[in-house]
Amino acid sequence: MVSRVITLTTDFGGSDTYVAAMKGVLLSLVPDIQIVDVTHEIDAQDIWGGAYSVSTLMGLFPTDTIHIVVVDPGVGSDRKGMILETEHGLYVAPDNGVLTPLLDREPIRAVSIANPEVMRPVVSATFHGRDVFAPAAGHLAMGEPLSNFGEPIDKPVRLGLWEVERGDGWVRGRIVHIDRFGNAVTNLDRRDAPMEEEVEVSVASTTARGVRRTYADVGEGEVLALVGSQETVEISVRGGSASEQLDLRRGDQVEMRWWIA
Amino acid sequence: MVSRVITLTTDFGGSDTYVAAMKGVLLSLVPDIQIVDVTHEIDAQDIWGGAYSVSTLMGLFPTDTIHIVVVDPGVGSDRKGMILETEHGLYVAPDNGVLTPLLDREPIRAVSIANPEVMRPVVSATFHGRDVFAPAAGHLAMGEPLSNFGEPIDKPVRLGLWEVERGDGWVRGRIVHIDRFGNAVTNLDRRDAPMEEEVEVSVASTTARGVRRTYADVGEGEVLALVGSQETVEISVRGGSASEQLDLRRGDQVEMRWWIA
Amino acid sequence: MVSRVITLTTDFGGSDTYVAAMKGVLLSLVPDIQIVDVTHEIDAQDIWGGAYSVSTLMGLFPTDTIHIVVVDPGVGSDRKGMILETEHGLYVAPDNGVLTPLLDREPIRAVSIANPEVMRPVVSATFHGRDVFAPAAGHLAMGEPLSNFGEPIDKPVRLGLWEVERGDGWVRGRIVHIDRFGNAVTNLDRRDAPMEEEVEVSVASTTARGVRRTYADVGEGEVLALVGSQETVEISVRGGSASEQLDLRRGDQVEMRWWIA
Repeated sequence: MVSRVITLTTDFGGSDTYVAAMKGVLLSLVPDIQIVDVTHEIDAQDIWGGAYSVSTLMGLFPTDTIHIVVVDPGVGSDRKGMILETEHGLYVAPDNGVLTPLLDREPIRAVSIANPEVMRPVVSATFHGRDVFAPAAGHLAMGEPLSNFGEPIDKPVRLGLWEVERGDGWVRGRIVHIDRFGNAVTNLDRRDAPMEEEVEVSVASTTARGVRRTYADVGEGEVLALVGSQETVEISVRGGSASEQLDLRRGDQVEMRWWIA
Repeated sequence: MVSRVITLTTDFGGSDTYVAAMKGVLLSLVPDIQIVDVTHEIDAQDIWGGAYSVSTLMGLFPTDTIHIVVVDPGVGSDRKGMILETEHGLYVAPDNGVLTPLLDREPIRAVSIANPEVMRPVVSATFHGRDVFAPAAGHLAMGEPLSNFGEPIDKPVRLGLWEVERGDGWVRGRIVHIDRFGNAVTNLDRRDAPMEEEVEVSVASTTARGVRRTYADVGEGEVLALVGSQETVEISVRGGSASEQLDLRRGDQVEMRWWIA
Repeated sequence: MVSRVITLTTDFGGSDTYVAAMKGVLLSLVPDIQIVDVTHEIDAQDIWGGAYSVSTLMGLFPTDTIHIVVVDPGVGSDRKGMILETEHGLYVAPDNGVLTPLLDREPIRAVSIANPEVMRPVVSATFHGRDVFAPAAGHLAMGEPLSNFGEPIDKPVRLGLWEVERGDGWVRGRIVHIDRFGNAVTNLDRRDAPMEEEVEVSVASTTARGVRRTYADVGEGEVLALVGSQETVEISVRGGSASEQLDLRRGDQVEMRWWIA
């Protein structure tokens, strides 16, 4: 066995047995594999949410880890199944853009999943997690070479991720994720503004002065901007929920401005 | 150790520590066991929901897997604990019908859990998951023979599952599950209608023409019937939720009709 | 490797990748460790809820288990990270009171997490679960001695847990937890009342006669008091939710009275 860990990221939720079905297939092929749930609470069919999840874990797992990512509104259509080899690990997913963050940052090798021998004997038209992606990952974990799975994919599908606009003394980006605590994660990099200059961050009708180090730098209930765990700017409320208090959503525009103090 | 994998299916939810308590007991007995969560989001005390979950996973896990299923409104009463030996694996559960799908389809051997030596030293009257089912499963995993657990159970409790009515050119069944995506899974088999004839499926006041292969066979937002991952007929909405759009619930009647084209 | 199991208890929820990030860090350090999720549904920043969870699992896991508990509203402030050695296992958590139940009951040794070599190379100010607690637990699992982590903590922070008032023929306590089924767990011990005397339990405007053995001792829909799985008095409704039916919340007062029959 080449890999010891397989992770699962899906929009299957926690109340059905779809995830367990995938685990049964995996354990039937590679009984000693350790299976790690990343999350199954991606919003239903939200490819963007899946891509964001993928982006947050790059570099954290052992490099021989196999990551299965199934957010798959096009299941049963002609969209391809794909294996992506990266320096961070192997990814198994539909070729629908859910792996975009990897395509943008790394040297890769992409191969389609086309060989029936790496799938379950009968493949449904609605549940490739169980019938295609899990068995393919199992075969990968057993050391089967990439060339056995299918043909190279030259241009994997990419999502058009939100870009950052840059001006004189400002950058403008987006909220890319709202987390469980109501923190609004943005795609802005604090380092776009010179570290020695004054800075402020605006979202909706609120402006936060400065980019803080941590929540304790402001009073209970106050809005702040800080550099979050993804190393990007986040909008938070100490001891509260920024998304509720400021009515923030994914996609909302965020602007960081700076000037000489 | 005889078994390497133990699965857990309960109605304990995710915010309490009941599931973790069971895992602690299991790992204290069999430290190298791999524990797989199937789901803990069965509706509280919904034996039918537990039975449906069990039905969806038959044949997917290694046959030496031990499946613990705890949906147990009668805990502390005189309902028995049970071990069921099947060709798909060993099941540990209250004898309250939650294993009905296995009783209907397979040769089985059923034994009560009565021997105090396979339980925790003190058995509560409210939490047999921790005090009876987990330790019994641990002893099973260590290879203890079935005869050590208790007496044979001749007639395990069965739920009266919904039956399918059959007429001339029609079958009538039920919605047996609503999944996370709002798909309504039924107990109808597409093959009850001759494959070469025209077919339609009605539920509530909606009729879907044909039984499709996959979601992409209709337009975004359209209702369709298809053969789902359980190999039964499902009612879906492409890119949406059939249960919300059509106000469907478990138990609703569904009819499939056919005629020569 | 000294430990084979690491458990995780957090308020990170199930839809973000914070928990998975911790698992990636752990598996990178100790690839063969078994990781067990206790719960990630502690209410956001609810240190009391975390402490209650900890209290429910003492003695259930192997004693070489490492328990990571992250409910951490003070992350990035000067609150310390802590390792607590107990007879039940090793605990890794912020020193903010979340381990109070262990401090009250056991001989302990507490050490701060201060040595950068047991942390990730770059430590964020907002996510010590990934950057401090997970790597520290990984180093613990590899057998690194406690003295390598930091300095002894003489007085770990304690929550002022609810106390029980005692009078002549009565004790008065609190609801300490509402579980998934709507059971209200209290901090009252049935044995505070002589076992041979009559007893009743009042909460809100309801009084339950006697302390029952199990749900089946009353009729469907009836309120009862019983000794729950934590060996304390619980208020329940057979086949229903006591918390909904009686509008109960954590912190509500509960009184048990007794008299000679």
